[in-house]
Amino acid sequence: MIPKRLSREIIYESDWVSLYADKVEYPNGYILDRHHLVHFDYKSVAVVVKNEKDEVLLIKSNRYVTQSEEWEIPAGRVDNDEPSIKAATREVLEETGYTITDPQLIYKYNPSNGISDQVVAVYKANALKKEGQFDTLEVMDIKWVSKETVTKMITQNEIRCGLSLTGLMLVLFCGL
Amino acid sequence: MIPKRLSREIIYESDWVSLYADKVEYPNGYILDRHHLVHFDYKSVAVVVKNEKDEVLLIKSNRYVTQSEEWEIPAGRVDNDEPSIKAATREVLEETGYTITDPQLIYKYNPSNGISDQVVAVYKANALKKEGQFDTLEVMDIKWVSKETVTKMITQNEIRCGLSLTGLMLVLFCGL
Repeated sequence: MIPKRLSREIIYESDWVSLYADKVEYPNGYILDRHHLVHFDYKSVAVVVKNEKDEVLLIKSNRYVTQSEEWEIPAGRVDNDEPSIKAATREVLEETGYTITDPQLIYKYNPSNGISDQVVAVYKANALKKEGQFDTLEVMDIKWVSKETVTKMITQNEIRCGLSLTGLMLVLFCGL
Repeated sequence: MIPKRLSREIIYESDWVSLYADKVEYPNGYILDRHHLVHFDYKSVAVVVKNEKDEVLLIKSNRYVTQSEEWEIPAGRVDNDEPSIKAATREVLEETGYTITDPQLIYKYNPSNGISDQVVAVYKANALKKEGQFDTLEVMDIKWVSKETVTKMITQNEIRCGLSLTGLMLVLFCGL
């Protein structure tokens, strides 16, 4: 039994993000007049890239929203009509300069399902070759780290990007 | 070097969620005219609750936003001026009927830092006693599951709630 929409107020719509206030009826009959919903018209991808030494590729992002520098995995938005596996390959190249082989979809999840319908597809892949430089607009540095280093970073709460934390734990600790 | 705000258009403000379109200057000089930012004035908590058999407490949520039923851990919003440890205790009681002991903050992260400044504080705690019923507005059922069952659920991509996936992996697979 899923709550259903009775009506919708469109607060804002754009191709980056939309915001609605919906009137919603719950299975037990309760009516919530304004259930906010942050809508994304596109999926996101996040990619755990490994090399032959079983190290993982991290990027240092300069995040405007959180006003912080973050060690993350490559991630980004899937463009219109782009297969998400292509978006995964493209984002890794743009953000790290590496080409990848054998990208595999390992998980789909909603980062914040109480208010946002954003969907993240998590991929894992192997690094093939460094083809170029990373995009210096949002990426400040890249590095390869061992599983031990990632474990230490997580133990010390150093990975604060949810997509990165999720992807790294799925691959390194859940065997996906 | 962090991107900085040059100006802000307020699209919508409320005590649930706000939306801004900011003009942002990047460290390399690039100016982005509309960087959308979904702002939350409050923190969220998510709680991994264990019993003496080392099982984890899951709730079945009826999610309006994703139009789905989800197995999740108890989670919710921290009220104004409420310490987040109290919110953790309150949310577990409301969503499961259980009181808890020894709640410990184990992690803070941003579920979707490309666009949202939402902060989630992850707690772990021990179940003390079933004091009452769970709130039937959003919770349809509760159950205790073993680590093996959680592992299987994750391996089969059955946990789609990001807060739950993150909390469960931090406690069960990262030793936090």
